[in-house]
Amino acid sequence: MRKILLTGFEPFLNYKINPTMEVVQKLNGRVMNDWIVESFVLPVDFHESEKKILEKVQQIQPEIVVSLGLAAGRYKITPERIAINVKDGAKDNQGFAPVDQEIDVNGPDGYFSTLPIRKITNHLQEVGFPADISNSAGTYLCNNIMYSVLHYVKNEKLNCKVGFIHIPASHELAIQHGNVPSWSITDLTKAIEACLNVITLEG
Amino acid sequence: MRKILLTGFEPFLNYKINPTMEVVQKLNGRVMNDWIVESFVLPVDFHESEKKILEKVQQIQPEIVVSLGLAAGRYKITPERIAINVKDGAKDNQGFAPVDQEIDVNGPDGYFSTLPIRKITNHLQEVGFPADISNSAGTYLCNNIMYSVLHYVKNEKLNCKVGFIHIPASHELAIQHGNVPSWSITDLTKAIEACLNVITLEG
Amino acid sequence: MRKILLTGFEPFLNYKINPTMEVVQKLNGRVMNDWIVESFVLPVDFHESEKKILEKVQQIQPEIVVSLGLAAGRYKITPERIAINVKDGAKDNQGFAPVDQEIDVNGPDGYFSTLPIRKITNHLQEVGFPADISNSAGTYLCNNIMYSVLHYVKNEKLNCKVGFIHIPASHELAIQHGNVPSWSITDLTKAIEACLNVITLEG
Amino acid sequence: MRKILLTGFEPFLNYKINPTMEVVQKLNGRVMNDWIVESFVLPVDFHESEKKILEKVQQIQPEIVVSLGLAAGRYKITPERIAINVKDGAKDNQGFAPVDQEIDVNGPDGYFSTLPIRKITNHLQEVGFPADISNSAGTYLCNNIMYSVLHYVKNEKLNCKVGFIHIPASHELAIQHGNVPSWSITDLTKAIEACLNVITLEG
Repeated sequence: MRKILLTGFEPFLNYKINPTMEVVQKLNGRVMNDWIVESFVLPVDFHESEKKILEKVQQIQPEIVVSLGLAAGRYKITPERIAINVKDGAKDNQGFAPVDQEIDVNGPDGYFSTLPIRKITNHLQEVGFPADISNSAGTYLCNNIMYSVLHYVKNEKLNCKVGFIHIPASHELAIQHGNVPSWSITDLTKAIEACLNVITLEG
Repeated sequence: MRKILLTGFEPFLNYKINPTMEVVQKLNGRVMNDWIVESFVLPVDFHESEKKILEKVQQIQPEIVVSLGLAAGRYKITPERIAINVKDGAKDNQGFAPVDQEIDVNGPDGYFSTLPIRKITNHLQEVGFPADISNSAGTYLCNNIMYSVLHYVKNEKLNCKVGFIHIPASHELAIQHGNVPSWSITDLTKAIEACLNVITLEG
Repeated sequence: MRKILLTGFEPFLNYKINPTMEVVQKLNGRVMNDWIVESFVLPVDFHESEKKILEKVQQIQPEIVVSLGLAAGRYKITPERIAINVKDGAKDNQGFAPVDQEIDVNGPDGYFSTLPIRKITNHLQEVGFPADISNSAGTYLCNNIMYSVLHYVKNEKLNCKVGFIHIPASHELAIQHGNVPSWSITDLTKAIEACLNVITLEG
Repeated sequence: MRKILLTGFEPFLNYKINPTMEVVQKLNGRVMNDWIVESFVLPVDFHESEKKILEKVQQIQPEIVVSLGLAAGRYKITPERIAINVKDGAKDNQGFAPVDQEIDVNGPDGYFSTLPIRKITNHLQEVGFPADISNSAGTYLCNNIMYSVLHYVKNEKLNCKVGFIHIPASHELAIQHGNVPSWSITDLTKAIEACLNVITLEG
């Protein structure tokens, strides 16, 4: 069967849980059409998360890579349109806090997602989940792995579609962390499953 | 069995649906402990909604009245703390748009909810639904019926707890209407059921 | 000359400055029509702020009391419509953090502002400052002094108009504190001066 | 003297005024160090705004191009980090509403601003104006002219720094249009002047 690499993150900064970890664990091994989901949870560490996801791509040779990130404050499923060649932001779990650094000094300024982002948002809304294309994945780890995998796949000329999807907080995270919009884990998981369905039908 | 009057509203202003209508219809007839839910959907009309809810109170003699309203923009279940003696706001579905009018010229400036609002929010968070006490029910129909029923029950010295709970938009409403946080109807319904559970245990 | 008591607060919680303190200091001694402004800065302490403002009312016998508070997150000048009989919230600067306590066990649930709040917001917009009536002063110190002064003036049958106005963060506070809308101190001061002008013309 | 081309936009969509038009008109002809500002107001039309700004670049041969756009909802001065190769959004004033179109089919996915964006935001905060780098100029006209000028300058190998700065609504716009954060035109103008100062010192 053809493979989908689905990644989430461990909890980061001052959050205690990360709904992306729960979602990818729930979808691990899921079979859809001719495809099987292989899930992997990344550490909140600029260097390690990039290294680990590229290792996974080499190792399992997926034809689709979908990475999930938490966007606390958003209240829709938001596939990202573009990854940009910048690292900038708060300290990661290792204390690393880059300012306006390039991810790859020879890389282009940006890479568009190669997932069918418009079809994904249209399909999500048809099946009842609010969705929107986002035009910025930020400059933190989420953008970093999106850029790195797109750059790698381009340079290695791999037959692999790559993209990133930000999701809202879960109810559990909102209760612990406070004042952010949230969905139930059930809704988050169903919505990501719907995303993978559209992508595999395209693939 | 003892009775809970549970009210919602028809769609209002430029919205096509109203999740409060769906939630109260789903919970109509629900039995919990010694209590039964009687649901009623109110029109979006200052005069009629007030008249209809007071008629229902007289007719079914509930010991608990819980009214639901949509708070597009909120992302938690928010029991209201107080109703105030003001009508003010956009046109209702009949085109009536009061400015700073009193609901009752002889009424007090405000009435606190007689529902156990702190227990409700604590219980909701325990069972996994983000919740907060709200300190303003606005000055529109929601506040108007909350004030009117509290005023009526006080004046008539009825043995009846009264309050109002604002809920977020549903996913369906968010998809139609645009840029607001939302929950699934399943989550909204379960959360309101949890509210009624706490209130009846108190009652 | 007739007197206006104008109060602000010291910095509170984790903020380093408080624009209300700067605004009231700038307007101290200002004469408008037959009126003179007497400014006073209150401590961020539930007990002391209430005690101090009531002492000032007794001492200077103002015919107008306008209290200012910072509403970090708001981006308009917002006269408050009502004060409610509740103390609830985060720790004050003395570590006192009440939960759902009454301000006065024999007091009414709410007191409307006796300032001409609609005229204030209309006038502010005419002179170029965004403004809106707010329906909740919260449950923290701001609401507490608003309620206490309205209660005192009512019980003592004083000829004195009383109300509260929340203002946005200043640019300086926003730069220090982060992600909140802000106005320049110049704009904040001019806008409050415009408020006092309307109130004294009414008085 | 060396030239700065400073552009703003006419009012767009359902707005009646556009603060960027006012700001660029106020700064037209301003001399700073060896530089002079030449201001130009662009139409809200995808095709015309792009055509007009490129004509201006050819005609006046500026060494700096700074374009301003209104970001209703933002409350800081936000230099944009990147322009992306997409046109998408609501109808412009000519009724043109592209969906996910490329600006240039042979262009790269993104172009970083060549203005010193970090120095700009640091300087603004030092002189008292809240500022932040933005990672998305959207996909509407603002992004379109930013991308087009960067693309042109790159292809023509011109000695010219190019970038885009989004500004908050003005108080006047907020009063007319409703619920958005705002600054006074005085603050907006002073802040943009401070931006030009930093850029020319760099240039």
